Amino acid sequence: MKIAIAQLNPTIGNLTFNAKKILEAAQKAIESGANLLLTPELSLCGYPPRDLLLDPSFIEAMATQLQIIAKKLPPSLITLVGIATPNDRWHVTGGKPLYNSIALLQQGKIQQIFHKRLLPTYDVFDEYRYFEPGGKSNDFAIDCDRLEITDTANERTWKIGVTICEDLWNDEEFWGKRNYPHNPIAELAELGVDLIVNLSASPYTVGKQALREKMLNHAVTRYQKPILYVNQVGGNDDLVFDGNSVAFNRSGEVIYRAANCETDFSILEFDRNRKDLLKTLIVSFPKCEEAEIWEALVLGVRDYVRKCGFSKIVLGLSGGIDSALVAAIASEAIGAPNVLGVLMSSPYTSKASIDDAIALAQNLGILTHTFQISDLMQAYDRTLKPLFSGTKPGVSEENLQSRIRGNLLMAIANKFGHLLVSTGNKSEMAVGYCTLYGDMNGGLAVIADVPKTRVFALCKWLNTRQPGTEVIPQNILIKPPSAELKPGQVDQDSLPPYEILDDILHRFIHHHQSPDKIVAAGYDPNVVTKVIQLVTRAEFKRRQAPPGLKITDRAFGTGWRMPIAARRSP
Amino acid sequence: MKIAIAQLNPTIGNLTFNAKKILEAAQKAIESGANLLLTPELSLCGYPPRDLLLDPSFIEAMATQLQIIAKKLPPSLITLVGIATPNDRWHVTGGKPLYNSIALLQQGKIQQIFHKRLLPTYDVFDEYRYFEPGGKSNDFAIDCDRLEITDTANERTWKIGVTICEDLWNDEEFWGKRNYPHNPIAELAELGVDLIVNLSASPYTVGKQALREKMLNHAVTRYQKPILYVNQVGGNDDLVFDGNSVAFNRSGEVIYRAANCETDFSILEFDRNRKDLLKTLIVSFPKCEEAEIWEALVLGVRDYVRKCGFSKIVLGLSGGIDSALVAAIASEAIGAPNVLGVLMSSPYTSKASIDDAIALAQNLGILTHTFQISDLMQAYDRTLKPLFSGTKPGVSEENLQSRIRGNLLMAIANKFGHLLVSTGNKSEMAVGYCTLYGDMNGGLAVIADVPKTRVFALCKWLNTRQPGTEVIPQNILIKPPSAELKPGQVDQDSLPPYEILDDILHRFIHHHQSPDKIVAAGYDPNVVTKVIQLVTRAEFKRRQAPPGLKITDRAFGTGWRMPIAARRSP
Repeated sequence: MKIAIAQLNPTIGNLTFNAKKILEAAQKAIESGANLLLTPELSLCGYPPRDLLLDPSFIEAMATQLQIIAKKLPPSLITLVGIATPNDRWHVTGGKPLYNSIALLQQGKIQQIFHKRLLPTYDVFDEYRYFEPGGKSNDFAIDCDRLEITDTANERTWKIGVTICEDLWNDEEFWGKRNYPHNPIAELAELGVDLIVNLSASPYTVGKQALREKMLNHAVTRYQKPILYVNQVGGNDDLVFDGNSVAFNRSGEVIYRAANCETDFSILEFDRNRKDLLKTLIVSFPKCEEAEIWEALVLGVRDYVRKCGFSKIVLGLSGGIDSALVAAIASEAIGAPNVLGVLMSSPYTSKASIDDAIALAQNLGILTHTFQISDLMQAYDRTLKPLFSGTKPGVSEENLQSRIRGNLLMAIANKFGHLLVSTGNKSEMAVGYCTLYGDMNGGLAVIADVPKTRVFALCKWLNTRQPGTEVIPQNILIKPPSAELKPGQVDQDSLPPYEILDDILHRFIHHHQSPDKIVAAGYDPNVVTKVIQLVTRAEFKRRQAPPGLKITDRAFGTGWRMPIAARRSP
Repeated sequence: MKIAIAQLNPTIGNLTFNAKKILEAAQKAIESGANLLLTPELSLCGYPPRDLLLDPSFIEAMATQLQIIAKKLPPSLITLVGIATPNDRWHVTGGKPLYNSIALLQQGKIQQIFHKRLLPTYDVFDEYRYFEPGGKSNDFAIDCDRLEITDTANERTWKIGVTICEDLWNDEEFWGKRNYPHNPIAELAELGVDLIVNLSASPYTVGKQALREKMLNHAVTRYQKPILYVNQVGGNDDLVFDGNSVAFNRSGEVIYRAANCETDFSILEFDRNRKDLLKTLIVSFPKCEEAEIWEALVLGVRDYVRKCGFSKIVLGLSGGIDSALVAAIASEAIGAPNVLGVLMSSPYTSKASIDDAIALAQNLGILTHTFQISDLMQAYDRTLKPLFSGTKPGVSEENLQSRIRGNLLMAIANKFGHLLVSTGNKSEMAVGYCTLYGDMNGGLAVIADVPKTRVFALCKWLNTRQPGTEVIPQNILIKPPSAELKPGQVDQDSLPPYEILDDILHRFIHHHQSPDKIVAAGYDPNVVTKVIQLVTRAEFKRRQAPPGLKITDRAFGTGWRMPIAARRSP
């Protein structure tokens, strides 16, 4: 039996577009002689549809669209499509009005519906907001002669277990704890299925694919069943789905892997006699974390631009490392000629900054435009003078410079229909070393989940990618970071060195370590207290930040839900 | 038996402050001869604590604080305190690591812990993100002679059922459907409890108290048990908790109501023989929706200012009705002398706007400052000229005016430590008739959930509140709304009349009506299509908006979770 795998990149809510992509994959599947086509979780509406699911007409439209594609699909092909379906008994039994389902289509009809059983409700996931968990195991039988689905399971049928994303993520041996009361994989193994498929929309974080493969290997080894995992690909707001669909044979070997951060289509062979998946194409996964992150960020930018209907990007180029990295990502994502870098120098801007920004733009081949902002700084001073005279210049005046730049960039974005992207890194976002309505401006915060130390690492990696080709000018890599909002200012005047800052932040944000525990790791108690205070006080800024591409398991964004008017006290 | 009710206003996360408030209430309770003290849901940490709950040291600190107050409370007083407690078996059984609990304290000890059974996971509520539902009914027995809790229930004891907020919201008779599989009230009634208490943190929306009382009345009538509902009060970011704790006797009569939008402390009598609550003070509830909304918004502003550590507010005064209403709310919330209204006139600003803004400021008694922004407009024109020359002035230039104003206001906020509040209404936020990084600037969006037609109604009501005292100048009420960003501009140039717009928006946003259904209600299909398109396209603006005070059941904010890079298609 041949199994086609469509690693699709749906647009959230665009049912006709997504249906078209499923039908195209089906056409290819039939041409390749495949009998079964697998598509990702919620492939018809894209993942995550979020509150579109609250709209009954959207649910109806999805059901209608499913009927349409059922008719258009090649009749013999068994196709699995991800779709939200109504829970018809919710009024009576209590519970949520929808299921996160997979529809099995064949012969122009919906033959079976399977429901997701484990509903992630943590971090960026809100599935229990919308869905009722499915109550029973999901499997279907294929007659291995006629390659049609059949009601009767016997020696001449294959039994295939269907799981949806999180259904796979509850092995108490692997995690050292139970995450949910049930384990769908164990239940399917007990039912004696011959193959387990897992249709997913699993977002990227650093090291995630390695984790997935370790987990899949554990499940295969434990239950002795081949597993085929199909993931969505594409950027959807803050989430980047990296694809990397993968299959393991019964011996626990990777026998197939799809592309990283690209759509893909493949055919796998399920061996009749051995009841196992046969080895096929294995796309190699990026070699290092920097390469992984780079590809995820490029995809995230490309898809946000495309799916929002833009074609060009504008960004501020300060001559610093953050905007250099973002400019490089943007150039790779949509092509350097579509990127406009804007230099906005003030009296505090060093000549080196301008030279570095220009050198970067030349390396990348992007357009630039240069403004002087001193005229505007003076105009604000004149306007504010009646109220500000006698006060000492300080944060207010520094923020104004950043906000003048933010306004100029937005003026360009509005005038020419470009997407403005912001360039702040995660360390800055954490401690609030950024100006709301200034350098935070933009439709997408490209590196908001990349700590400063990682920004350096990415830039260094980028320079080694094509030996002999410098992307980030050397001077940008070696000079001390500065916001250049007053004479001689460097970041380290007001922040601890980034190696220290980033480690404290990582302990606090990712590992929820208490101040005492962070101090016990060898840090100055005053520094720890100050950093935590800064993080807490910057909550109001983060609440108003643009979506930031998530690359870690704890990003500021849809999965970070902190109160503002709050105070932590012992 | 005397029951003390503490309608508290906790600060989220401030355990020592909240503990102090509970201890103060206990002192008053003892002085009044009370035997039982009730406090709201999660009274120790405040509701909603959101992701503070993910921090194990915060959970430990709460447990420690509970031990401390157990020791400090008057020993004879039975005190119910809301607290998040660990689910010790979550690793083993699967599920969430916490419960949303009530601790029963007496004699210096935690005598019992009750867990919330129905966990709201919709709109602004994310309880399933953190909590495991409690599995069994919660009740305790009080020896009616010694007025102590006792293990043995008999004729000489009262049995009291404990429910937490949502536990009360699942009467299939009342709602016409089941919301959850269990009904804790029915189960408690079956156990034969003598009294049901409901400890809540129920946020305000228009008409919510009338709904709560109707629902409580239904439950009392159905189960013939007196019910005592204790609510939190206070503003926490976007949510305003209105208090209005209320009690019903067995006949279904309201026999007690606490203050609207204020902290309160009261003593109720539970009659030994009749096993019923006796009539006591009933605070009257605001007479009309406008009064209700007004009090909620005033509390929301007051608490956001106070809990964030501010004491003064700055806002832009355009001479329009939105900023007039927000200035009036701010004045009532923190006192007119603490409010600074800033007039920022451009060449497009009419003399009437300036006069109206000044008249408003005089009526309220707030300070004002006036800027001319034409110097800054020209400076931006000069700066942008090399890039913009040959283009037609349009949205980019209009937005610049708004952003100049936004920058000036933020400069003042930063310089003097004031809180900037934004003044956009819900109709504008819905269709994106507002400028990101311009008039959307601020720490709090005061009327972001108030549709424009309601803004008018509130202002008219305000003028009748104290007969003979005009608050909002008449001209502000009668002139056509305008953003004054180009000559002769009025809102209705680009938007349908607000009566039509608001009704379409209400149908689309609150009732999830499809375009067809809205058209069927009598609206022009082109207008409906355009409005829905505007709403969808403005998602990127709303994502970056400050928290807005919620007054409806579908506010843009923590309970509105829409994708941006998405497209609705049939």
